[in-house]
Amino acid sequence: MSPKITTELLKHLRQVMKNPKYVQEPVQAYIVPSGDAHQSEYIAPCDCRRAFISGFDGSAGTAIVTEQQAAMWTDGRYFLQAAQQMDNNWTLMKMGLKDTPTQEDWLVSVLPEGSKVGVDPFIIPADQWKRMSKALRSAGHDLVPVKENLVDTIWADCPQRPCKPLITLDLSYTGVSWKDKIVALRSKMAERKVMWFVVTALDEVAWLFNLRGSDVEYNPVFFAYAVIGMNTIRLFIDGDRMMDPAVREHLQLDSTLEPEFKIQVMPYGSVLSELQAVGAGLSPKEKVWLSDKASYALTEAVPKAYRYLTPYTPICIAKAVKNTSETEGMRRAHIKDAVALCELFNWLEKEVPKGTVTEIIAADKAEEFRSQQKDFVELSFATISSTGPNGAIIHYKPVPETNRTLSVNEIYLLDSGAQYKDGTTDVTRTMHFGTPSAYEKECFTYVLKGHIAVSAAIFPNGTKGHLLDSFARSALWDCGLDYLHGTGHGVGSFLNVHEGPCGISYKTFADEPLEAGMIVSDEPGYYEDGSFGIRIENVVLVIPAETKYNFKNRGSLTFEPLTLVPIQTKMIDVNLLTQKECNWVNDYHQKCREVVGAELERQGRHEALQWLIRETEPLVRVE
Amino acid sequence: MSPKITTELLKHLRQVMKNPKYVQEPVQAYIVPSGDAHQSEYIAPCDCRRAFISGFDGSAGTAIVTEQQAAMWTDGRYFLQAAQQMDNNWTLMKMGLKDTPTQEDWLVSVLPEGSKVGVDPFIIPADQWKRMSKALRSAGHDLVPVKENLVDTIWADCPQRPCKPLITLDLSYTGVSWKDKIVALRSKMAERKVMWFVVTALDEVAWLFNLRGSDVEYNPVFFAYAVIGMNTIRLFIDGDRMMDPAVREHLQLDSTLEPEFKIQVMPYGSVLSELQAVGAGLSPKEKVWLSDKASYALTEAVPKAYRYLTPYTPICIAKAVKNTSETEGMRRAHIKDAVALCELFNWLEKEVPKGTVTEIIAADKAEEFRSQQKDFVELSFATISSTGPNGAIIHYKPVPETNRTLSVNEIYLLDSGAQYKDGTTDVTRTMHFGTPSAYEKECFTYVLKGHIAVSAAIFPNGTKGHLLDSFARSALWDCGLDYLHGTGHGVGSFLNVHEGPCGISYKTFADEPLEAGMIVSDEPGYYEDGSFGIRIENVVLVIPAETKYNFKNRGSLTFEPLTLVPIQTKMIDVNLLTQKECNWVNDYHQKCREVVGAELERQGRHEALQWLIRETEPLVRVE
Repeated sequence: MSPKITTELLKHLRQVMKNPKYVQEPVQAYIVPSGDAHQSEYIAPCDCRRAFISGFDGSAGTAIVTEQQAAMWTDGRYFLQAAQQMDNNWTLMKMGLKDTPTQEDWLVSVLPEGSKVGVDPFIIPADQWKRMSKALRSAGHDLVPVKENLVDTIWADCPQRPCKPLITLDLSYTGVSWKDKIVALRSKMAERKVMWFVVTALDEVAWLFNLRGSDVEYNPVFFAYAVIGMNTIRLFIDGDRMMDPAVREHLQLDSTLEPEFKIQVMPYGSVLSELQAVGAGLSPKEKVWLSDKASYALTEAVPKAYRYLTPYTPICIAKAVKNTSETEGMRRAHIKDAVALCELFNWLEKEVPKGTVTEIIAADKAEEFRSQQKDFVELSFATISSTGPNGAIIHYKPVPETNRTLSVNEIYLLDSGAQYKDGTTDVTRTMHFGTPSAYEKECFTYVLKGHIAVSAAIFPNGTKGHLLDSFARSALWDCGLDYLHGTGHGVGSFLNVHEGPCGISYKTFADEPLEAGMIVSDEPGYYEDGSFGIRIENVVLVIPAETKYNFKNRGSLTFEPLTLVPIQTKMIDVNLLTQKECNWVNDYHQKCREVVGAELERQGRHEALQWLIRETEPLVRVE
Repeated sequence: MSPKITTELLKHLRQVMKNPKYVQEPVQAYIVPSGDAHQSEYIAPCDCRRAFISGFDGSAGTAIVTEQQAAMWTDGRYFLQAAQQMDNNWTLMKMGLKDTPTQEDWLVSVLPEGSKVGVDPFIIPADQWKRMSKALRSAGHDLVPVKENLVDTIWADCPQRPCKPLITLDLSYTGVSWKDKIVALRSKMAERKVMWFVVTALDEVAWLFNLRGSDVEYNPVFFAYAVIGMNTIRLFIDGDRMMDPAVREHLQLDSTLEPEFKIQVMPYGSVLSELQAVGAGLSPKEKVWLSDKASYALTEAVPKAYRYLTPYTPICIAKAVKNTSETEGMRRAHIKDAVALCELFNWLEKEVPKGTVTEIIAADKAEEFRSQQKDFVELSFATISSTGPNGAIIHYKPVPETNRTLSVNEIYLLDSGAQYKDGTTDVTRTMHFGTPSAYEKECFTYVLKGHIAVSAAIFPNGTKGHLLDSFARSALWDCGLDYLHGTGHGVGSFLNVHEGPCGISYKTFADEPLEAGMIVSDEPGYYEDGSFGIRIENVVLVIPAETKYNFKNRGSLTFEPLTLVPIQTKMIDVNLLTQKECNWVNDYHQKCREVVGAELERQGRHEALQWLIRETEPLVRVE
């Protein structure tokens, strides 16, 4: 990896920072955050401004360019990569280290008195703006919104914003029509006495209208906003996508509809002026509901007294609780996904000993098998295909420079998933194609014990996910081991593979109570730097649990694994399992054999079926 | 319980709310919070202003009196008691219920436009003032500080503020001299670049100077403030307590000392004016460190730009990590406490069948046995002595109206503790003096499993207590049971039985990471309304744990029980325990037998020793 040469680019950027064509007054610093205007986790190429200006293309980082300096803040996952990708114009600010200044502190230390710091108001979330603006103001500087994105002005070959065709999802997939979703949303709005709701997150727009897109890789979303009033629906979206007859019919654009369901389609770029018009026309007590993560630009469009901001929107919460059609779809998707992985692992078992399978080849093969399944759309994230020491890099993605060959001497970790029209998958299996060492088996078994402890946990209705995180670590902790990531994230239904508002993590910020119908991942791990990585991940559905008693009539919950891929028994030290844990593994494998076996049979995949049967032989524990 | 008649009192209070002798302008509402000027959990009789004005004497509640109304906010523990103790002048505001307005919302709904709401600025913490003031201001009202406490002006027979003699603690108890504590504090101040530190919590003043008092029941503290500068020490304290030669010598008041250790003793009431003088003399960058829970009055004395507020003070954190002298003292105190409880339970076993022992008699007997032990000072909280249905009332305290007789047919729960000069104890045991039912044993055993899960947990250095809370509940959750309180609290060393900044709770606010030397309680329970209560509580010390591996060299921690009182094996359903849990109980009992047995022997308490030996017979688990 050679660094990007940014001398000219930075010179150019510093010119536009003073150019009255773009800025009312010169700005002495310009902030280039990671995100897009929707605060998406995954972004389109046209939104990769920070990568363009610096060369550093990791998923998280913020660049700040002043007249003299250029600095990049990123976290421990990316210290090495950022250092390799950036040239000497850049100073790397290693977040999480004691001596690293915050962006605010650094700005205050380097800026001349009374400076202006510019930022694109569409890219910075309102809560971040507030924090940074306050810090700068108290030091005599000003954070100012710069309407035109300054990186865009110097980005000659900036890719077009994607504008791909839409997919309509009928009731058999969604379970609820978009009209009923609007009705439910309006009733939540009435409860909170708000008159308007602004939908800014891309997956929330997609979910609300039962539409999907492919504007962003891995995430079946499309660039759009929506503003929902008690009697109006405005959808802000570009291109001729609304000319598609299927979409027109789905949204009933040409039908005679009750006025409150009539969708006004408007250009994507007009959302700010339309929202400003809404804001200007408000009478007292007419509030506008926004996520507190919405952009500063849209938040400012509503006068402060009329804003109603919450960390989670009612759509985010409704979307998280899957209905029967969605859970049935997720079950189907996971069975198909398991078929693909049985094929893959059977193939790997034969091919790996030949020494011809690299991490990239294995990842491609996984995609090939998945793409053979019905309703396959695309992958749900970049496949983590890693062997030996690469497995210890938690967010690894094989590239030619790092690509290792799978062998019978190393552990192989595959974390992968796909988007099917009926659901989203995300599964990690850790395999050995030779003979694992006692130590590798020991570590694998602790991780498995943690996985089971969460999956089999019974807990009261209303429990927050963070209260389950320690269950996943307990067996590792007993031996002085641990892993430095959370245990689980919410999973969308043919939507983003990471979604809020629930999860399982030692970090306790903003996680909403678990309820039946929510879907999360359960993925403890153990990573030994320079040697190997282990992770066992299932996607699990929150379901009601039957219990002997029922304290205060609260009811109890537990998890049902949706992922049905065998856990390699060769890696398990059976003597470290309790009888209960052993039974869990055997019951799980029995279910894999029955459910996935039937589908393999149906698809005529006999060799993979034989593999499945071999891999699901019951464990026997010797007391 | 008959309600207090408050008609005249309220009339009187409403008069002084308009009396220019006390208020600059009339106030339309007056807030009477629970606390004292030090935000203490336990308060002196002279500070029970809310109880005086309303009749309601529970530990938590806030009264607000307007010209027309009087309202009392309290939580679920006290709905019944408050309703019984207050007359019809009062409206009970049940906190936690959906339709109950907040104090701010209620005030806004009842006050005439542009009202003034008064409060004693010494009683209201700065963070509460800020919240309430903001809410009132945005509705056009004003929160105003009323210097003289208006309840005091109408409280004819208000008790004197206690001013009892002090106890000096030498190095054998404290391990660190007060001078060394000042040096350590100043180094923390230098780290944070603050020039002054204001000590407002009573236990922090007591800990810092290695002094104890008895101004507040159960808490060995005394009314005082301290203001520590980099070169000065000011102690604000009343009475002739500083005339005591032992105290003078302890504080070296008459010695030639380096000036930075010279203590200036000043009247308790002069802290505000002295702090204002400090505040007025500050030069830029000279910050003053205060707890954000300090009173509004003291916080306001320091100009805003010079304030450095933190949720926990460096004293609070230093105090929580006990040194060897303190842990040795705590061990001794717990052995003596166990001797007293062995005597008590042996006595109860003989007396209960006679039907003559009430909850109050049992509590008194426990105190009698404790008072026979060396260095006994007083109880550490009001004994919870409860049998049958009373056991299900979590904060029960027996009074003549509720006093039940212990019997061989009911479960008995005793939660009690004492202050010894060498340490503070807090222990709960649940006993049956007849034959417990299978269901009672089942519930007891789940609680025991939870107790063991926390006590035996191994976890990485730096883990916060809330991450352990679910371990205590897991066995109950499996059967659909739970308990509605936290699992543990910090315990002082001959100081308050509840102290910050660590604890074990599903509530995650502000708990500092656990480290070796911290002391917390481990007290899961189960409560069946109208039937029985079960709780098993040990005080445990955080100690380093030996583990097979050591991930990232972080080191591991676990707990050592300081409490050494047998857990009634009659209540245990051995078949519900794992072998590991069974071993834990047997090891624990073995230690009780050895350590407490030796002390019983030494004290010649042979009958109690025989009881201990019987109660610590090993459990045998039939596989």
